[in-house]
Amino acid sequence: MGEWMTIELKNVDQLRKAIEAISSFISEGNFRFSENGISFKAIDPSQIVYVIFDMDKKVFEKYSIEPTFVGVDLVEMSKILSRALPNDKLVLDLTDSEMLLRLEGSIRRSFSLPLIDVSDDEVNIPKTSFDASIDIKSKILREALKDASLFGSSVVLRVKDNQLIIEARGSSGTLKSVAKQTKYVSVESKSEVVSKYSLNFLQSIVREADPDKKILLELKSDAPMKVSYKIGASPIEFHLAHMIL
Amino acid sequence: MGEWMTIELKNVDQLRKAIEAISSFISEGNFRFSENGISFKAIDPSQIVYVIFDMDKKVFEKYSIEPTFVGVDLVEMSKILSRALPNDKLVLDLTDSEMLLRLEGSIRRSFSLPLIDVSDDEVNIPKTSFDASIDIKSKILREALKDASLFGSSVVLRVKDNQLIIEARGSSGTLKSVAKQTKYVSVESKSEVVSKYSLNFLQSIVREADPDKKILLELKSDAPMKVSYKIGASPIEFHLAHMIL
Amino acid sequence: MGEWMTIELKNVDQLRKAIEAISSFISEGNFRFSENGISFKAIDPSQIVYVIFDMDKKVFEKYSIEPTFVGVDLVEMSKILSRALPNDKLVLDLTDSEMLLRLEGSIRRSFSLPLIDVSDDEVNIPKTSFDASIDIKSKILREALKDASLFGSSVVLRVKDNQLIIEARGSSGTLKSVAKQTKYVSVESKSEVVSKYSLNFLQSIVREADPDKKILLELKSDAPMKVSYKIGASPIEFHLAHMIL
Repeated sequence: MGEWMTIELKNVDQLRKAIEAISSFISEGNFRFSENGISFKAIDPSQIVYVIFDMDKKVFEKYSIEPTFVGVDLVEMSKILSRALPNDKLVLDLTDSEMLLRLEGSIRRSFSLPLIDVSDDEVNIPKTSFDASIDIKSKILREALKDASLFGSSVVLRVKDNQLIIEARGSSGTLKSVAKQTKYVSVESKSEVVSKYSLNFLQSIVREADPDKKILLELKSDAPMKVSYKIGASPIEFHLAHMIL
Repeated sequence: MGEWMTIELKNVDQLRKAIEAISSFISEGNFRFSENGISFKAIDPSQIVYVIFDMDKKVFEKYSIEPTFVGVDLVEMSKILSRALPNDKLVLDLTDSEMLLRLEGSIRRSFSLPLIDVSDDEVNIPKTSFDASIDIKSKILREALKDASLFGSSVVLRVKDNQLIIEARGSSGTLKSVAKQTKYVSVESKSEVVSKYSLNFLQSIVREADPDKKILLELKSDAPMKVSYKIGASPIEFHLAHMIL
Repeated sequence: MGEWMTIELKNVDQLRKAIEAISSFISEGNFRFSENGISFKAIDPSQIVYVIFDMDKKVFEKYSIEPTFVGVDLVEMSKILSRALPNDKLVLDLTDSEMLLRLEGSIRRSFSLPLIDVSDDEVNIPKTSFDASIDIKSKILREALKDASLFGSSVVLRVKDNQLIIEARGSSGTLKSVAKQTKYVSVESKSEVVSKYSLNFLQSIVREADPDKKILLELKSDAPMKVSYKIGASPIEFHLAHMIL
């Protein structure tokens, strides 16, 4: 790989948030650089969260790269991206052994991350036909999950009568949060749905979402849930396994 | 108990601050709901702090309740109240086994706390005739206590010549804080007073007081001190035992 | 010592920052009060940092003192100075056994620190003729050191072609920060320089510098570095030993 390889990004925050969200579950992963942009798919070691992230090449100021596929330590990559200052431009290069991340601002900082072999067990996410979909303001969902965290480490999501109900239960008390149709929440469902999820994973999934934008939850009883939102212009999608007990 | 039971409160902050102040000493306690409002009296397990808190029914938007007496976990109750968002209204209900706290805002969140049996040893606080009383701006008292915390875990309060003197002494140094009569401090005394108190307890007692309002300290040499202030419209009163050594 | 002894300082922040910077390396030290002002020289226990701090008597509102020399616990002194409120005036007195620090504001707080014997091994800092000097905005240097801290506990400073290059290397990646001549950075050098320093010490040295003012770095290959800046009107100077390996 050589000079033909340059990716430039002015809005580093987008990539930073995505990698931060992902690295809270998945410490190492493979990036696919294609003609269309960058994509990332991975499942966490406990196989509870599957994430798909795409950045179209249009998001980049420059996107000139030969298709390739590289593994990196996402935790380290996230630390580097969090060092970007407001007006820094990110220039990304790849060599045979390293990913080079250059932050160009009042001084030029070049970080390099060794490329690593990350096993790439292609996961087949079965196409689910969901029974309910909820469009909810990120801030509201986050507050409801914080409420739930007072009582337990799991939440039950229920969709019923065009309402989303979030429940948590512990020895010290219970929570029942009811979100009706408002300008902040819209609920559509074909049938009643009830399903249980890890609260901790769900909180991490929504942590980087813009608080004032909406998150789409797609649900089916006792089935994995799909959580999707956009980071800037780039879609990120999580599939979160349901809990059996 | 049934439908006749509804208490509504718009200014949740008042109740939140009171329960926070109390729960830093006393993890479980009994609330008395009477015709006049809610009251709470309890002593901490080490019998060092006795607290009395009253909320007149006028403070509530709705106060329709049959007289009753229930015990709850104050630490859990404090966590729930701290989840109130700025415009949330609190609706409080009681069932035979639970206290229901509903926060109504952009979504409706219903928390329930199991009622518990809390032993209610009626404590007889002997009527003290204090020798000195100090009205002091909360912020100033708090800063002086922070100063003291550099050096030790107790403070000596002295009243002399219309001054309040706060002293702390440790192996690494000493503090002597002198508060004269100003617009922030007024001191009245019949005789000189000197008495020692737990710094940690005293700091917790004043933590929730409005920094710009005044706190009343009533003192007598080698006797418990009375600390009182208002949280919103509601009086809270602490009796703090003196230290012998 | 008696009534003739009074030092008053309105801008307590200056002294606070200096003592905070110094006390992060050196927990006890000797102050010299002379006709010209206060000075402080000390080396840290591991003999890696040598610091010289001077406050001219002009900085003080009142400076009336007989020449003397006293040792104090700098960590405790730093805690006391950090208790100064925005408009407090510091009055400093010495007795035979104590340093008295009085903060005078809405209430008067008198702190006393026991004087201690601090061994005063006069260190001879050999006069170095440096090969490079860099004037760099404090904020920029600090960010570059934070970048470096992602990867290791030491940094290599390089001066070459009128650029300052800061490098760090660890198992998880590397950083190379290049600061060219700009309005924020000016580099002068007689020859190329490369030298390695403890990152942790260097970060502590610059922590209290005004982020928008400049720091002067004076360097020579494989030799101690001199770091100097002003805290308010008062010069502070650090000599930081280089690392051999």
